[in-house]
Amino acid sequence: MSISTVILKKIAKEEGISLGQLQELVTSGKVTIAKNRKTRNKKFCGIGKFLSTKVNANIGTSSEKQDLKEELKKLKAATEAGADTVMDLSTGGDLKKIRKEIIAQSSVPVGTVPIYEAAINAAAKYGTITKMDKSLILDTIEQQAIDGVDFMTVHSGVTEKGLAAIKKDGRLTNIVSRGGSFLAVWMIANKKENPLCESFDEVVKIAGKYNITLSLGDGLRPGSIADSTDKAQIEELTTIAKQANYAVENGVSVFIEGPGHIPIDEIETNVKMAKNLCGDLPLYLLGPLVTDVAPGYDHITAAIGGAIAASFGADFLCFVTPAEHLKLPDVKDIREGVIAARIAAHVGDIAKGVRGAKDWDNEISKYRNLRDWKKQELLSIDPERFRGYHQDKSAISDVCTMCGKYCALKMVEKLWRKRKNQKSKNQKI
Amino acid sequence: MSISTVILKKIAKEEGISLGQLQELVTSGKVTIAKNRKTRNKKFCGIGKFLSTKVNANIGTSSEKQDLKEELKKLKAATEAGADTVMDLSTGGDLKKIRKEIIAQSSVPVGTVPIYEAAINAAAKYGTITKMDKSLILDTIEQQAIDGVDFMTVHSGVTEKGLAAIKKDGRLTNIVSRGGSFLAVWMIANKKENPLCESFDEVVKIAGKYNITLSLGDGLRPGSIADSTDKAQIEELTTIAKQANYAVENGVSVFIEGPGHIPIDEIETNVKMAKNLCGDLPLYLLGPLVTDVAPGYDHITAAIGGAIAASFGADFLCFVTPAEHLKLPDVKDIREGVIAARIAAHVGDIAKGVRGAKDWDNEISKYRNLRDWKKQELLSIDPERFRGYHQDKSAISDVCTMCGKYCALKMVEKLWRKRKNQKSKNQKI
Repeated sequence: MSISTVILKKIAKEEGISLGQLQELVTSGKVTIAKNRKTRNKKFCGIGKFLSTKVNANIGTSSEKQDLKEELKKLKAATEAGADTVMDLSTGGDLKKIRKEIIAQSSVPVGTVPIYEAAINAAAKYGTITKMDKSLILDTIEQQAIDGVDFMTVHSGVTEKGLAAIKKDGRLTNIVSRGGSFLAVWMIANKKENPLCESFDEVVKIAGKYNITLSLGDGLRPGSIADSTDKAQIEELTTIAKQANYAVENGVSVFIEGPGHIPIDEIETNVKMAKNLCGDLPLYLLGPLVTDVAPGYDHITAAIGGAIAASFGADFLCFVTPAEHLKLPDVKDIREGVIAARIAAHVGDIAKGVRGAKDWDNEISKYRNLRDWKKQELLSIDPERFRGYHQDKSAISDVCTMCGKYCALKMVEKLWRKRKNQKSKNQKI
Repeated sequence: MSISTVILKKIAKEEGISLGQLQELVTSGKVTIAKNRKTRNKKFCGIGKFLSTKVNANIGTSSEKQDLKEELKKLKAATEAGADTVMDLSTGGDLKKIRKEIIAQSSVPVGTVPIYEAAINAAAKYGTITKMDKSLILDTIEQQAIDGVDFMTVHSGVTEKGLAAIKKDGRLTNIVSRGGSFLAVWMIANKKENPLCESFDEVVKIAGKYNITLSLGDGLRPGSIADSTDKAQIEELTTIAKQANYAVENGVSVFIEGPGHIPIDEIETNVKMAKNLCGDLPLYLLGPLVTDVAPGYDHITAAIGGAIAASFGADFLCFVTPAEHLKLPDVKDIREGVIAARIAAHVGDIAKGVRGAKDWDNEISKYRNLRDWKKQELLSIDPERFRGYHQDKSAISDVCTMCGKYCALKMVEKLWRKRKNQKSKNQKI
């Protein structure tokens, strides 16, 4: 991984660690800075050990909705809400054009999942994705690297052994990863091993050439809490761990992708297992969602899972929007998803002891105690939302309409202040 | 505590435990069924050990907003969204009238905080709450019991020792509980111990007479994560623990109220400490909120804290709405708050191993796998929200607009189904 000292210095300063420590972390692969060799003028960030937890937002068209303008609005909403990276997961329309436009307009690093384009192009060319061949996959990866993609999910851990585990043990929700299912369909039809796994060295070579970060995708992640921490998932993680170490040894940075749907009491195990098996490399979690029963609120189920995962060491949270499981998210959903994931990331950072994390809480609470609403607004995670709610103003300027004149903070402050004054007065007399 | 066998049988059946076990739990105080002796025809629930986690919603006027009709709409919204109990926290308007109307219209048990009415009446009568006397407090409690309140928060754990701890050690946010601050103001002005503490036996007597559950309020709960798990909080908990045991020994059921704002890595400690100190009595948590920086999203910060707390044994979650810290919640906020708290409760129940909890997830995931949208809608925690999102329909009937024709579940199912058919075919040949 090659990153200029200027960028490293900036990141080290932001994270409150020394340049030397950051350089060591990057060299060992424990911190990843997703940046294509040719990407310039974006806000880069460090993701991994000792750094604050980062947030990714997914945007992109589907076969059903292919409005580039809408996707660019989502991009803007995501970065304005504070996403550290975005992924273009488009599967509908002119994929190359959409990708290039998103890369051009994004202020943060952009990730993709090249197997989508490879599969869709194979389907267009041959009428079936099962005729997608290895060279098409590798060419797509390289072409996207040339386009300037900073990090790419490759589902190289989906293996015949993993699929056999699903088939043998059964699952409630077989495969919920689009990339994973494209590959599974191909593998079963062709009775062959996953080309991304078999030719992982070639994938690493391309990644090295363009300084792409490989996000080792969990194509077999559990899609329901019943399937959590099962054989297929562990099988895939074991494969990914080996591949991750190979990539890092060859100078390519990685993310380890993690599930998915996990019950709350299995999150610690999952995070520690991934961290231990993969030598403490950056862990990128999709959620995790702690229940299956709340479609429409999966930004909340993911915030619960993400906060816990981050507190145990997850480094990078992929947002989940309220639209998850129901529809392609709109601009509003994207915004909600980013803020919920940022809350989770920050909550994790408090537990991780990330420098400055608790200070943020202390600062806003100081102004809450003083009923300084303007300062609270500026310090809140979403000042726009704060303003919206606080428009409902109290007749008394320094309290809100919830407690009005019976504001606990104000009542007590007044009293102790008064007594303090009396005391000084008495002392004078 | 006296509860009819008919009610006990119904609750035991719902919770999937035997009547005998429930009776034992109720007798020992480990399960509370909040029900005023005279309350009839409401949906009662058991709260405590071995039972599913329950959710309370707060409604009520403030000195700034006193619209009874609006409060009744909130009541309806709260119970329709699935709140197991409601608390009328009104501090503005005709308190008695509002309370009686809420009790009359509520389909679930109703709780109150009598010190609000006592303090407000004292202020009206004497011009200051510091002239509130013990008999006014006890009379208010008794009068509310006569009105039919099922459970009451009494901040009997606020002591001079607790206040001294705050004064000595300092806090970022001194006292954030309205009840706690009313009492603190009174105690400091009168240089006297908390009458609810000094006369706790008399409070218990009234509670016993009307079969009221006492919710031992944490008037000194931390209002910022910086103040979490400090001396004042622990001092109060120790006092509450003694009082709780006294109440239970005298046949009065209780809830132990817990904080407040707690960083994610202190929740387990807080829950276990409260459970251990109080002999496993039902624990009622206000949140807990895991960060101070997200006003406008405190239903999410509370869902994170509540889910974790429930997973470690909290029995009863007080909802927090997105309006918390900013304004009196409206109907929409109440709805959001209840659903978020219900998600947290359910997530906790999965970890607790509550009977039927995981089955709900498995059932909805079964229909997700089959892309049966109608069944998913019916099974989702909020079918109304589900419908709203799913209106954005795909051109293909059994997938959604997120993945469209590249639906992972569908692609894989189709393939394995096809192979299965081929296999049977081959076997035939």
